[in-house]
Amino acid sequence: MIVCFGEAMVRLAPPHFARIEQCRGFDVEVGGAELNTAAGLVRLGREATWVSALPDTSLGRLVANRVREAGVGTDHLAFTTDGRCGLYFLEFGASPRASSILYDRKQSSISQVKPGSSSFWHGKKWGTFNWGEIFDGATWFHVTGITAAVIEDRDVLSEALSAARGAQVPVSVDLNYRSKLWSPDEAGRVMAGVVRGAELLIAGEADAENLFGVKGENFAEVAKQLADRFGVKHVAGTKRSTPLVWRNNFGAVGYANGELHETPTYEVEIVDRLGAGDAMASGIIHGLLDGDFLKGLQYGAAMGAIKHTIPGDLPWIDKAEVEATMTGQGLRIKR
Amino acid sequence: MIVCFGEAMVRLAPPHFARIEQCRGFDVEVGGAELNTAAGLVRLGREATWVSALPDTSLGRLVANRVREAGVGTDHLAFTTDGRCGLYFLEFGASPRASSILYDRKQSSISQVKPGSSSFWHGKKWGTFNWGEIFDGATWFHVTGITAAVIEDRDVLSEALSAARGAQVPVSVDLNYRSKLWSPDEAGRVMAGVVRGAELLIAGEADAENLFGVKGENFAEVAKQLADRFGVKHVAGTKRSTPLVWRNNFGAVGYANGELHETPTYEVEIVDRLGAGDAMASGIIHGLLDGDFLKGLQYGAAMGAIKHTIPGDLPWIDKAEVEATMTGQGLRIKR
Amino acid sequence: MIVCFGEAMVRLAPPHFARIEQCRGFDVEVGGAELNTAAGLVRLGREATWVSALPDTSLGRLVANRVREAGVGTDHLAFTTDGRCGLYFLEFGASPRASSILYDRKQSSISQVKPGSSSFWHGKKWGTFNWGEIFDGATWFHVTGITAAVIEDRDVLSEALSAARGAQVPVSVDLNYRSKLWSPDEAGRVMAGVVRGAELLIAGEADAENLFGVKGENFAEVAKQLADRFGVKHVAGTKRSTPLVWRNNFGAVGYANGELHETPTYEVEIVDRLGAGDAMASGIIHGLLDGDFLKGLQYGAAMGAIKHTIPGDLPWIDKAEVEATMTGQGLRIKR
Amino acid sequence: MIVCFGEAMVRLAPPHFARIEQCRGFDVEVGGAELNTAAGLVRLGREATWVSALPDTSLGRLVANRVREAGVGTDHLAFTTDGRCGLYFLEFGASPRASSILYDRKQSSISQVKPGSSSFWHGKKWGTFNWGEIFDGATWFHVTGITAAVIEDRDVLSEALSAARGAQVPVSVDLNYRSKLWSPDEAGRVMAGVVRGAELLIAGEADAENLFGVKGENFAEVAKQLADRFGVKHVAGTKRSTPLVWRNNFGAVGYANGELHETPTYEVEIVDRLGAGDAMASGIIHGLLDGDFLKGLQYGAAMGAIKHTIPGDLPWIDKAEVEATMTGQGLRIKR
Amino acid sequence: MIVCFGEAMVRLAPPHFARIEQCRGFDVEVGGAELNTAAGLVRLGREATWVSALPDTSLGRLVANRVREAGVGTDHLAFTTDGRCGLYFLEFGASPRASSILYDRKQSSISQVKPGSSSFWHGKKWGTFNWGEIFDGATWFHVTGITAAVIEDRDVLSEALSAARGAQVPVSVDLNYRSKLWSPDEAGRVMAGVVRGAELLIAGEADAENLFGVKGENFAEVAKQLADRFGVKHVAGTKRSTPLVWRNNFGAVGYANGELHETPTYEVEIVDRLGAGDAMASGIIHGLLDGDFLKGLQYGAAMGAIKHTIPGDLPWIDKAEVEATMTGQGLRIKR
Amino acid sequence: MIVCFGEAMVRLAPPHFARIEQCRGFDVEVGGAELNTAAGLVRLGREATWVSALPDTSLGRLVANRVREAGVGTDHLAFTTDGRCGLYFLEFGASPRASSILYDRKQSSISQVKPGSSSFWHGKKWGTFNWGEIFDGATWFHVTGITAAVIEDRDVLSEALSAARGAQVPVSVDLNYRSKLWSPDEAGRVMAGVVRGAELLIAGEADAENLFGVKGENFAEVAKQLADRFGVKHVAGTKRSTPLVWRNNFGAVGYANGELHETPTYEVEIVDRLGAGDAMASGIIHGLLDGDFLKGLQYGAAMGAIKHTIPGDLPWIDKAEVEATMTGQGLRIKR
Repeated sequence: MIVCFGEAMVRLAPPHFARIEQCRGFDVEVGGAELNTAAGLVRLGREATWVSALPDTSLGRLVANRVREAGVGTDHLAFTTDGRCGLYFLEFGASPRASSILYDRKQSSISQVKPGSSSFWHGKKWGTFNWGEIFDGATWFHVTGITAAVIEDRDVLSEALSAARGAQVPVSVDLNYRSKLWSPDEAGRVMAGVVRGAELLIAGEADAENLFGVKGENFAEVAKQLADRFGVKHVAGTKRSTPLVWRNNFGAVGYANGELHETPTYEVEIVDRLGAGDAMASGIIHGLLDGDFLKGLQYGAAMGAIKHTIPGDLPWIDKAEVEATMTGQGLRIKR
Repeated sequence: MIVCFGEAMVRLAPPHFARIEQCRGFDVEVGGAELNTAAGLVRLGREATWVSALPDTSLGRLVANRVREAGVGTDHLAFTTDGRCGLYFLEFGASPRASSILYDRKQSSISQVKPGSSSFWHGKKWGTFNWGEIFDGATWFHVTGITAAVIEDRDVLSEALSAARGAQVPVSVDLNYRSKLWSPDEAGRVMAGVVRGAELLIAGEADAENLFGVKGENFAEVAKQLADRFGVKHVAGTKRSTPLVWRNNFGAVGYANGELHETPTYEVEIVDRLGAGDAMASGIIHGLLDGDFLKGLQYGAAMGAIKHTIPGDLPWIDKAEVEATMTGQGLRIKR
Repeated sequence: MIVCFGEAMVRLAPPHFARIEQCRGFDVEVGGAELNTAAGLVRLGREATWVSALPDTSLGRLVANRVREAGVGTDHLAFTTDGRCGLYFLEFGASPRASSILYDRKQSSISQVKPGSSSFWHGKKWGTFNWGEIFDGATWFHVTGITAAVIEDRDVLSEALSAARGAQVPVSVDLNYRSKLWSPDEAGRVMAGVVRGAELLIAGEADAENLFGVKGENFAEVAKQLADRFGVKHVAGTKRSTPLVWRNNFGAVGYANGELHETPTYEVEIVDRLGAGDAMASGIIHGLLDGDFLKGLQYGAAMGAIKHTIPGDLPWIDKAEVEATMTGQGLRIKR
Repeated sequence: MIVCFGEAMVRLAPPHFARIEQCRGFDVEVGGAELNTAAGLVRLGREATWVSALPDTSLGRLVANRVREAGVGTDHLAFTTDGRCGLYFLEFGASPRASSILYDRKQSSISQVKPGSSSFWHGKKWGTFNWGEIFDGATWFHVTGITAAVIEDRDVLSEALSAARGAQVPVSVDLNYRSKLWSPDEAGRVMAGVVRGAELLIAGEADAENLFGVKGENFAEVAKQLADRFGVKHVAGTKRSTPLVWRNNFGAVGYANGELHETPTYEVEIVDRLGAGDAMASGIIHGLLDGDFLKGLQYGAAMGAIKHTIPGDLPWIDKAEVEATMTGQGLRIKR
Repeated sequence: MIVCFGEAMVRLAPPHFARIEQCRGFDVEVGGAELNTAAGLVRLGREATWVSALPDTSLGRLVANRVREAGVGTDHLAFTTDGRCGLYFLEFGASPRASSILYDRKQSSISQVKPGSSSFWHGKKWGTFNWGEIFDGATWFHVTGITAAVIEDRDVLSEALSAARGAQVPVSVDLNYRSKLWSPDEAGRVMAGVVRGAELLIAGEADAENLFGVKGENFAEVAKQLADRFGVKHVAGTKRSTPLVWRNNFGAVGYANGELHETPTYEVEIVDRLGAGDAMASGIIHGLLDGDFLKGLQYGAAMGAIKHTIPGDLPWIDKAEVEATMTGQGLRIKR
Repeated sequence: MIVCFGEAMVRLAPPHFARIEQCRGFDVEVGGAELNTAAGLVRLGREATWVSALPDTSLGRLVANRVREAGVGTDHLAFTTDGRCGLYFLEFGASPRASSILYDRKQSSISQVKPGSSSFWHGKKWGTFNWGEIFDGATWFHVTGITAAVIEDRDVLSEALSAARGAQVPVSVDLNYRSKLWSPDEAGRVMAGVVRGAELLIAGEADAENLFGVKGENFAEVAKQLADRFGVKHVAGTKRSTPLVWRNNFGAVGYANGELHETPTYEVEIVDRLGAGDAMASGIIHGLLDGDFLKGLQYGAAMGAIKHTIPGDLPWIDKAEVEATMTGQGLRIKR
């Protein structure tokens, strides 16, 4: 069982590239970095559970229903009467107008969770996340910098990480820095603790410099420093270029034990690029669980590339088509 | 110029009676009690302006665009960087399942407005509502109990009411008690001050008892006591029966100077009953501005009845069809 | 082959009861009185052809495509470069707001047709309707007062009627008076000529009085006078009551040879009442073609009643379900 | 854990009352009698699992995703390479046109399941339903006559029933006779074996006569004979009247130990009546699991009534609103 | 009259690139290789009739209605009570995810047709296709390998081909090999007989090798061998490259009398590429009917290219715009 | 206050690239060259009013509502009982099929306006445009060749221009030649008078030659001649290349005082290219109002480029994003 811990939001997006201010309807999706990765792992044949809190309202149930639809476990999902359901509003763009996001996630239920004692209502009983039970039999723990940023009480995540380490569960962290949530300074300070000793760190070069002051000529140099400073075994990143809003190039790069690995780059036509990085993370974790980082990067690059073609944040991808994409199946219609 | 002061929200509702937790899309409308009434007055040929605050985001602009679309003035509409855009989620029901609303309006921009000094950002300058300018040349001031409840600092509304009274602008108040916003006690205490001396009070019997402890055998008895206690000239209410969710009966009743006025009752087939009471208010104010309370009730009943047939909160109604409805034009297709 | 002659328009209607002035989309249907009747006859197993003219544009082709989709013949449908495609805008209502129609049909191609010589472009050749060829082998000719009103040159219809009479083809006329198209006086003058000698006249009591000054206590009295004055064999009318916009009662009534026939009345829940009278006409003609007026009224009442439940102007009805409705099959779901 | 065994289909229905032959799009839902009941039990706070087989295709996954979304367990759901995904096409009607269904379910995966040995592909291994494991810890087994009809090899259901009886798991059977699936004779012969010894039999009077030749003046007489003949403890049925297609009256009736129980009747406005009987079944089982048949009928009647108001076959109903409906909460909008 | 013989299916595709397993609605189109070609010929001003069989259900009527809408003749279309309506489910892709199709066409009505005697219900009478009558006055017969594959009884097509040859009607065959329908061996054996003596064979190089073992360096070499071996006058193929899923290059190539003809290649932006090859076939046949193969290839290339831009399988293309495309009219908006 | 004078139409376009003749629904937008420019100026922070006439119908109100929604002033918008609402039908294309427009604007209300005396109904009073009042305090007057073409009585525009000149209001003219409205000869003759003495002329090289016989090697040569011949201060044009229907390159070029200015070219992905030139015009006028032609061209190029990405004719663009685009903000998602 892979444990993913974080927030999910209801996503509201006007159809067909409309601006929010002119729109008359929103398509409704559900997404959240760790949830997206959990869903990706399920698509690759793994079992994953999503630890989070949602308000006990129709919106909270909407999120939970979609989590279950994706095959992700909800045994440790709490329904609380504290806080609201996080939302985000998405405008799809076209060159030269980039897509853009308006967050409305303050006071979300997960952000109000408190550590260690009766802080929220769970299955009709007041309680808290029972990390001991959660990590019992777990094979992996995945979290991102967003979780670190949104939960107001920093001790909640610390408690989770301690429990994971205590249970010898390998940890992956996607840095995922969001400037609207916290400052680089605060993020750097907090994330240093989160990242320490991780099996896998996913980080871009810009964030590495921004949060940790780590600079280098290229990904390998940056990754090496991150690995050394934080005692991280594997460091991974995306290779993305953005010639147009509707067409990007996407691949993965990784560093471990002094070695750099790189996947081919896919030319992607973009239906919905939200969650592409999270889908990549699921591929990398999938490989590492089999003890094969390069395989992980390859699955991750293909998962991430295909995700660009699927509406919503969740990676509704077949394992078979991931593998067919990795071996170059071509773009003709499949009959 | 009629001045209406209050909050408007973006309304999100699944199409075709779907539950929120199962839905894949929301229809987007904009509504708010005082805004709806302002729009109704515009449809009846009056000029109305809506005083409010919105966040300076795409959602805030969405609301403002729709306000202008309805022909309501926005000269005193502020865009602020404080607070968010209020939202509400609506589920349309069918017997025996009533329609229901989930509010997500906490921390809205208007709720954060402060009185008397530089509290928000308006037209690129920090400032506040300039009530003197707002009421200059105004012919009426309309507000509801919702405004009283949502603005955290109670002095904002007091300031507005003082300014209106100072400028001899007649005031109408729709009690509009919402139990999710405040307790009956608090509402009763605050609204007593708001209502005092109003030209028009719109109130239901249940709220009158609930907030003010005023009881009676019928509307006339209750209205008389309200009029006497608060020095209110006209008291009005709705006559509604709810045999089914999709079919109601709707009319208006009013009390003034010891006399009870009643309109006929319309059998309404319900497309969207949100804003029906606010549409009724616009009809009543329209009549009072012509010095004719009974006319007002008749316009109000017809406006309210027709509003049930129109999607969204705003009364997209023709004055001509209001009058045709009042004179019984029949239900056959108009070619 | 049954020949139906008249105009069809593209119909634009906002979905879900929206007002036109607030709408963001139109559903597109195609309808026209004689076309609707032709389609109804096809559904009852007859062959029917629609004589008309359309502009040689994408809108004209849209209409023609839909005519063919309904199984109606288009051998005598002309594409012209004169005139535009008639349109009408429909607002669906709910009590107490009636549905309403805004016509935009001026200068339509059919309205510009001229009699007797090269007046329009047909199949790449300039020509006119060849009534001799059209009525060769025809078993019936159906037309309504709308055709009489919209074609600017009155001789076109006269020519058609003469040809039909010459070919011994029985004629049916639905009075279908539209006050937006012409005055009662002009309509009465023209329609007197159209109606004369018809096998079937469909007329309501109000129109009979309005156009011809024919009055009576009831349908029978009116019908008798119409039959006598114009030498018409069968006179038929609808029985409709309109308790609500979404629920009507519908049946048929007919007079012939001094006898009154009446069908039961169906309680109808209304999805789309446009074309109900035209569907009824198809049922009556169907019966008369079998020499059985009462049967015709019974088919007509059922066709008309069912039409209220079907989106669009065209009667997508199964003959089998017409007959099941006539024999009272019940309202439970058919599995 | 409650075990429900049966088929689910993808349901395709044109929006807004369109006929299938005129439609340009289908709304997609998923439904099946036993699945619907399982979902209802989950909504009432019970754990339920759905035993079935689906093709290993995108359509099969669509069904499975929706099953999980509804919170129903899929531990014993098989993906096979035998057979196709059952479909049904639904036309929504309006008086006097009843709604109707076109089934396209032949050769569905579940219909091809074979008993006792390697007959289908399950979780990548060839196998069969392991009834011993399935009923281990089960508290109830629910099945309907549809399952008996669609699985070509009758031994599959026999095997399941034997296993349930062996494990002392109480059984409920909804007769659910479908004339398109089998003859009354064959159904009577097979269902006699299925029903025998059931804790609960849900049956209508017409089916009782049709299948078993059991007649009576009223439900009580029929139920008594069914109970006696088949050794069934509780017999339940619906009370439905159908004045209009969009408005029915709905309640439940039950017989046990010589006593007749009846619930009040709800006036229902119909959004989607599919699955109402299955929702009722979930309420009755819920009561019986608490040892209270009357409570079950009351929950069942309310569940069934509310189901009419919800799009799709699945009962997206809150337990709280079921209870509020049972105590008469009224039809006004809930704010 | 051009005779086209084959199957059509209802096509169900989720809008906006959604995966089938996540979708909530399907767009409904109708398509089939020979039907698409018939429709293309009608768009080019020819008369064409479609010979096929459909179930006598609302789905069968849906197909027939659309066939008529496209202007294709249905005089020889049978409605049967044997078999179901073929369906196919389409997922639109984006690079690197190709579009894909899930067929559900087994047991379709046309597949169950039997030769020579009372095998299906046609216009209320049991009978079979009357090939003598069908080919009376026919100018062309078009069929594809799909027809050969789906009709279970191989004699049906043989009978049709014999009748065509007997009536001196030129035959065109599009090889259209579908691996999900039959093996290359069986297809090769059957198609050898179908192709023999054809006026036109449309075949790709891969299929030529796969079915007939014919190899060559280029299209000309392969085409020459096919022409020689099967006594075929004209051999044509598509030139397609697939740099991206949303952008292809498309043209036509042909071989006759030792000469190779090639059209320019169009860069196509892809809305819906289904039916592009069939549209090309209609252009080629159009040219050959005028005795001009090169003209046919040019019309075919333009028809095929434009088809990529039109939703659905049918080529809603104007002859005028085909010709404008052939002469390079440019891509600016046409006002 | 900037004064813009012209026609607006209701635009009807099938969604998702459908042909008009196959479509079942239209998206509804509102557009018109001068209105679009007025809206663009409002988005850049200017005040603009739109002078026009509309029919006093639901369609006329639809247009007016949208004008107000866009923040454009309607103080001088007349509602008349003369004429109809102009319409245009738009088909979105894809390579090699260009987008295309079908106009249905004859007899529009604005086209029927007469100069100088009581020719239309305005705010319940018969009257005409009061140009004196309109230009009182105006800072700019914008008009295009479309206005010159559509108003049947040429004196109306002359009157407006005289009034503007009399009030010293600078004038901009976009040549906007539409061959469907008038011949090059007539347009050249009329536009010579309109253009004379303008502050800004927007004209393409083809139209300059076509209407005025002005030729040159490049834009600079043509612009110089236009400036000289008509006494125009600034001449501007678009730089557009059209490699594909969905991807264009777009920039602006200008000439003044012997100098040529050019902006960078944006690669645009096209959602909706209608109104791009009008959006560019708003940017140029914005700059000229600040006395800076180059700035105007830069704003114009960015406004025009971004407009391609927004559904509808109106430029729902943020001033901030215009400026960010001008400084190259990149195409990554904005969080």
